Amino acid sequence: MLIRPATPADADVIWQILEPVIRAGETYALDRDMSRDDALAYWLGRDRETFVAIDADAVVGTYYLRANQAGGGRHIANCGYMVSPHATGRGVARAMCEHSLAHAKSRGFRGMQFNFVVSSNTRAVAAWEAMGFAVVGRLPAAFLHPTLGFVDALVMFRSLVD
Amino acid sequence: MLIRPATPADADVIWQILEPVIRAGETYALDRDMSRDDALAYWLGRDRETFVAIDADAVVGTYYLRANQAGGGRHIANCGYMVSPHATGRGVARAMCEHSLAHAKSRGFRGMQFNFVVSSNTRAVAAWEAMGFAVVGRLPAAFLHPTLGFVDALVMFRSLVD
Repeated sequence: MLIRPATPADADVIWQILEPVIRAGETYALDRDMSRDDALAYWLGRDRETFVAIDADAVVGTYYLRANQAGGGRHIANCGYMVSPHATGRGVARAMCEHSLAHAKSRGFRGMQFNFVVSSNTRAVAAWEAMGFAVVGRLPAAFLHPTLGFVDALVMFRSLVD
Repeated sequence: MLIRPATPADADVIWQILEPVIRAGETYALDRDMSRDDALAYWLGRDRETFVAIDADAVVGTYYLRANQAGGGRHIANCGYMVSPHATGRGVARAMCEHSLAHAKSRGFRGMQFNFVVSSNTRAVAAWEAMGFAVVGRLPAAFLHPTLGFVDALVMFRSLVD
């Protein structure tokens, strides 16, 4: 799997990955009716670096890396990852997370934080724990899942320094 | 103390409150060299409601209220509060917090979350605990304090439903 920086020419394939995740509304706290332009402006924002994962000449995933806070919090990174519905179960998320951890370290970040992991997304929670992340916070009933109702969201953290 | 919505005419007094807090860099994860325009665009952003607290005809504090997340996370509020350095110890933060809790409830929010309370700001932590907030997360060494070095940041939460 090749992971490279996204370019404006990737907008269509990135949107094909983002749209079903946003419309489902089960894993990201984004408006389900978010427009293509708003979603791409968010995912490819100037405050972040965005990458695409390529397998057999197809874009199978995308992620962004940014500082989670400004000022005195600028040394902690934040990422978001999305995998094509046609490429689940192939280790794409894991590969992107590994890439992001190495890239964040190379950028001088000292830790990585996920602000809002929906607790019912147990596959993601397990994947991040396997990548060395720990649950450092639990936000009670902070996410309204379209079928499960109110569920907790988790804050997960991993240090990038020894 | 009167608390009312901020207007564009309040920009100067709001900046007089924001500037020393931002320049000190001890309590908010904002760039210490943030410009007046950027700070006011942030504090008075279109995604939030901003208020000022008035005591003896002087603006002594300001706060904003917004949804902490979009989509399935839109029912949790987030606030930021700043008090004039000339008005500390007079209960201004407490009065603004009480106002914000009532206002958030009236807007239908089901909880309020502070994403990044610097742990060395013990006065703020104690004040929010006295207002019914609990520490629900601890972000290890997530804040670089200008004199204390790396300190933890806390995630604090309070329910607004019975």
